[in-house]
Amino acid sequence: DKIKGAYDAGSGWLCVFLVGIAAGTFAGIIDIGTTWMSDLRNGICLEEFWFNREQCCWAANSSTDGDEACDRWRTWAELFGDFAPNYNPGVYILTYIMYVIWSMVFATLAVMLVRVFAPYACGSGIPEIKTILSGFIIRGYLGKWTLIIKSVCMMLAVSAGLSLGKEGPLVHVASCCGNIFSYMFPKYGKNEAKKREILSAASAAGVSVAFGAPIGGVLFSLEEVSYYFPLKTLWRSFFCALVAAFVLRSINPFGNDHLVMFYVEYNTPWHIVELIPFILIGALGGLFGALFVKANVWWCRKRKTTKLGQWPITEVLVVTLVTAVFAFPNKYTRMNTSELIRMLVQQCGVEDFNNDLCDYTDQSVLNVSDNLGGAVAGAGITRALWMLALALVFKAIITIFTFGIKVPAGLFIPSMAVGAIMGRIIGIGMEQLAVRWRDAPIFSDLCTVNGQCVNPAMYAMIGAAAALGGVTRMTVSLVVIMFELTGGLQYIVPLMVTVMTSKWVGDAFIKQGIYDAHIQLNGYPFLDSKLEFEHTTIAADVMRPRRSDPPLSVITQDTFTVDDVETLLRECDHNGFPVVVSNESPYLVGFVNRKDLTLAINNAINTQDGVVAASVVYFTQHYTENVVVGGPPPVKLRKILDLAPITITDQTPMETVVDMYRKLGLRQTLVTHNGKLLGIITKKDVLRHILQLENQDPASILFN
Amino acid sequence: DKIKGAYDAGSGWLCVFLVGIAAGTFAGIIDIGTTWMSDLRNGICLEEFWFNREQCCWAANSSTDGDEACDRWRTWAELFGDFAPNYNPGVYILTYIMYVIWSMVFATLAVMLVRVFAPYACGSGIPEIKTILSGFIIRGYLGKWTLIIKSVCMMLAVSAGLSLGKEGPLVHVASCCGNIFSYMFPKYGKNEAKKREILSAASAAGVSVAFGAPIGGVLFSLEEVSYYFPLKTLWRSFFCALVAAFVLRSINPFGNDHLVMFYVEYNTPWHIVELIPFILIGALGGLFGALFVKANVWWCRKRKTTKLGQWPITEVLVVTLVTAVFAFPNKYTRMNTSELIRMLVQQCGVEDFNNDLCDYTDQSVLNVSDNLGGAVAGAGITRALWMLALALVFKAIITIFTFGIKVPAGLFIPSMAVGAIMGRIIGIGMEQLAVRWRDAPIFSDLCTVNGQCVNPAMYAMIGAAAALGGVTRMTVSLVVIMFELTGGLQYIVPLMVTVMTSKWVGDAFIKQGIYDAHIQLNGYPFLDSKLEFEHTTIAADVMRPRRSDPPLSVITQDTFTVDDVETLLRECDHNGFPVVVSNESPYLVGFVNRKDLTLAINNAINTQDGVVAASVVYFTQHYTENVVVGGPPPVKLRKILDLAPITITDQTPMETVVDMYRKLGLRQTLVTHNGKLLGIITKKDVLRHILQLENQDPASILFN
Repeated sequence: DKIKGAYDAGSGWLCVFLVGIAAGTFAGIIDIGTTWMSDLRNGICLEEFWFNREQCCWAANSSTDGDEACDRWRTWAELFGDFAPNYNPGVYILTYIMYVIWSMVFATLAVMLVRVFAPYACGSGIPEIKTILSGFIIRGYLGKWTLIIKSVCMMLAVSAGLSLGKEGPLVHVASCCGNIFSYMFPKYGKNEAKKREILSAASAAGVSVAFGAPIGGVLFSLEEVSYYFPLKTLWRSFFCALVAAFVLRSINPFGNDHLVMFYVEYNTPWHIVELIPFILIGALGGLFGALFVKANVWWCRKRKTTKLGQWPITEVLVVTLVTAVFAFPNKYTRMNTSELIRMLVQQCGVEDFNNDLCDYTDQSVLNVSDNLGGAVAGAGITRALWMLALALVFKAIITIFTFGIKVPAGLFIPSMAVGAIMGRIIGIGMEQLAVRWRDAPIFSDLCTVNGQCVNPAMYAMIGAAAALGGVTRMTVSLVVIMFELTGGLQYIVPLMVTVMTSKWVGDAFIKQGIYDAHIQLNGYPFLDSKLEFEHTTIAADVMRPRRSDPPLSVITQDTFTVDDVETLLRECDHNGFPVVVSNESPYLVGFVNRKDLTLAINNAINTQDGVVAASVVYFTQHYTENVVVGGPPPVKLRKILDLAPITITDQTPMETVVDMYRKLGLRQTLVTHNGKLLGIITKKDVLRHILQLENQDPASILFN
Repeated sequence: DKIKGAYDAGSGWLCVFLVGIAAGTFAGIIDIGTTWMSDLRNGICLEEFWFNREQCCWAANSSTDGDEACDRWRTWAELFGDFAPNYNPGVYILTYIMYVIWSMVFATLAVMLVRVFAPYACGSGIPEIKTILSGFIIRGYLGKWTLIIKSVCMMLAVSAGLSLGKEGPLVHVASCCGNIFSYMFPKYGKNEAKKREILSAASAAGVSVAFGAPIGGVLFSLEEVSYYFPLKTLWRSFFCALVAAFVLRSINPFGNDHLVMFYVEYNTPWHIVELIPFILIGALGGLFGALFVKANVWWCRKRKTTKLGQWPITEVLVVTLVTAVFAFPNKYTRMNTSELIRMLVQQCGVEDFNNDLCDYTDQSVLNVSDNLGGAVAGAGITRALWMLALALVFKAIITIFTFGIKVPAGLFIPSMAVGAIMGRIIGIGMEQLAVRWRDAPIFSDLCTVNGQCVNPAMYAMIGAAAALGGVTRMTVSLVVIMFELTGGLQYIVPLMVTVMTSKWVGDAFIKQGIYDAHIQLNGYPFLDSKLEFEHTTIAADVMRPRRSDPPLSVITQDTFTVDDVETLLRECDHNGFPVVVSNESPYLVGFVNRKDLTLAINNAINTQDGVVAASVVYFTQHYTENVVVGGPPPVKLRKILDLAPITITDQTPMETVVDMYRKLGLRQTLVTHNGKLLGIITKKDVLRHILQLENQDPASILFN
């Protein structure tokens, strides 16, 4: 018995432990698979085709010697033609074509798999998980098919070079693991509320493995995903995220020991003056975010309402083709998006002598320090700036059309890329300003003795946070994710200032982040806990029946017959019925679920001898005087009666009602006046009421 | 009108902005004051006595030359006697005496100020703030006198060399600022629930300035202090913590640009094998925490129940004397506790050649790298280990007696010091093991090529987290604080593992952290949201009146006279009364507050013509047939009636009831059966019921 108690107490921890292991494993496999497939677009490892480029070259012991030295790795151009190795138009065109073809192949596979096996595997999944955690049930959304297909298609979609990331989908994958494992523990599998605790922890693990940011994951789950997050869930999420991060680190898919994806090594202090460009970056990030949300929602609504929505496969192929064709010529869009971000947040050093971004005229500073930042920009930087500007515009536009197509698609990496490009450009601008006017009082603090003035890489990091903040409206979790991602702990104040600015500017244009916007777009019944409800309506204004409606369908506790109940069930599609003392004195006794009632009545008819249509159904504890001696035997249903329904009075302000719905996770409340039952308010009524007050169409809400 | 709306929306942000500035300013002043007073125990700056040692020497342009070169700073020995500068017994004794005298002076001042001006300024304040945030009101606890006296006495208590920190009290100081500023904004000052939002943000700012850890502060507020923490409060706390950290950074009390207190510079990776000692450290930290909580609560209870509690000033003086006398001879206890921690978490480097902790036999590694860790320990380390072990025992014991005396006292720094000493000792042990058996398979990974094996400084950092975790049972917030404190982001997994172990081990011995234990010790009415309520009692078991009690005092809606009401108010001390339809049909109409009722009745008697004792009091909307034509004029009190009291049925499980109390912050609920009023459950009843189920004395709860 004691062991059973200990198992019961420990089963929650055990469950999140398993979820953590599964999430870490899936993330590791997906990372390895994505690298391999991405490299496949460029070439193949001749002898061991299952190796990616790095492993292939590493196996040949030549990884350290740079690009050309690895002879076991063959690009497609090398395989198919005997071209001269230098810049040959033929090589370029062949590489281009192979790049496009592979992209199309991957995208086709991804969209076909999603269409055929698991339609729920598309998109990022975060809006749906938010909705599920708020109490809505979407059957199959977190099933094993979704898990498998989403994992596979995520690799395909990323490898296809589409402007999307695998971070959001990883949260979905981790939540699927959470859902599947919770069935191993009846305490969690059989109780939706308990299962949501596991799902909250699982989504923390998802972000933990997506970014190698366990704390950020916990905060993401708290700030963005979860609806109800008690301390116990906080601890379990923490543990789950830890296990997942640890497993991923052991698998070590990137081949380096850092848990950190975009590790930054610079240690340059920031100056108060620089808060001005940081706030500017924050404002631009917020603006970008708001525009992105508006444009993306507009496009998704267009897809839903026009014929476009009937051609999802074609849409994916067109988007892939456009992406591949435009991305290849620009080296900043051709590379993997996360590699682009890594490059942008990295400071220039001695080894970057042939990197355009680090082409400063005064190459002599190379000898003074590891840093080139202080010098005047050379031609390479001008070229890089143009290319980056083009990449910025392209990425920003194509992502609008990509987020929402029928493949797994995350938003984190593309938004961060846009932001990082913007940040780097502004950073280089600031640097050049400071270099040219290094004696101006405003810039005098910025330049240190060894010639370094401003660190544009830091601006890229700040920019990434600003854009992501504008799109998702995350704050604390974003800052934590950013410094777990980069290790740039000393930039916490600039990051916080930027993210806060970004959120405010974004909120000024459109109140919702992308996830909330998609929840509304899809009409999920989600009661946003962020919005303040400040109206003066009362429960009587919202409840059903309205004044002109027919009276509420109720069951009396000791006069309804089996026939009456069956008629009620046939004529009325409510999910449940209040039980009252009698029609004359409608005092509330309890509430009975439709499902339970149907089952109990059928059960009574089939198994209880002598039950006929005229049998009286009793919800009372004892028989009352209504029992006719010699009449048909009564049906006793007190045990299916919920004796503790939540009730409110008709004068209760809707503010309080909304608060109760949010905090207690209610589905309906009964409305009384001086003890008498007046009506009922369901979650649907509350949601409709809120939409009506916001002058939006209340019919757009979806219900299951 | 629009401006008013914008001001209304922005006033919350403005308020937390001001709170952040105030918290940062107070923290800066306190930091500067503490350094000055601490240094005063050793000597004085001759020409400018208001300078501390560092500023004094810096002003003389000789700060960089080390200890002896500063001639404007005079130690007391130098001032009072013309001793030879070397180790002279006279110098030692004089220094010792001055150290003890100054300590006693500071401690006397501190305790007198607290006793005379602000008794609430003692202790850490966190248990009380937790209670206040859960809805209890302690008048004057967050007032301006508490603020001023606590700030002053905090400096005095820390300077007295007592084993306490200023981190907890800083949270109290910040909360006082929050309380004071909230009165500038009627929206917050006049509404207790709204004010609590500001207080949550203020406590985040408190930790933010205490450790230079803004994110850690937000999480501390979320995990440890706040009761109800919606997303809006999260954002405001984030902003408040940011502002406070920024202001503190601008004041720059430590004179270095790092926001980070114990910045660690090492970058050594950790190895999987090391998780074993980390888990050991976590377990020891949890054990220490549990023992500390038990011992401290035992001592505090002793103080409360015996005569000891009548001599608070003597107690403080005795503790100070004992601390000063025992602390001086050991250099690790003589130094400032936070300096001790800083030293312990710092790796040995070239500049530490005369530091005992870095006395390795093989000094040649100095030339190879900055690191001495790989060498065999010399005599200095053995000496240091003995001193540290003594310091550990002393600190652990004296802190038990210190936390609870009548001066402002925080627990963070002393617990971290105990943990850091323990961690460093275990770290050196591990290091020596690995050095001696460097070829054993288990250690083979640990030693790198340049001779470094294990980094004992990292163990000290881990140990600090373990001990603090054991004492407070924080998890996520502690990990974040630790890495904001040290910048050791790559140690996130070891830190998480250790903190989790520490919490589990601690929970196995005693379920409560120190703050919860003190809440219970003081009998504050705090409904812990962490504990799961898993009993099968129902509302009918808990509600008043019990079966044997006289019936519930109710008011009928249209038959009570003024006289009846006055009798009821005289004979019954309830805080409020339910209003029912009539005595025969006790259906609930509403709830009326005692205060409102008294006021309204007095008002009616004094201002309304013709109201006599026989006047009928009406709570109905319209006059009913009871109005006797020609009788005394009725008193209409519907407007003071709360028409939307929260009701539950008698069959509601107490689990649900407790959940509603926690989430909705209720003070009472009315219990009905089929619409009829049966009884009432107050928060007091719920708390008593929980204590009874835990076999504790339900009479120990305090109420205001």
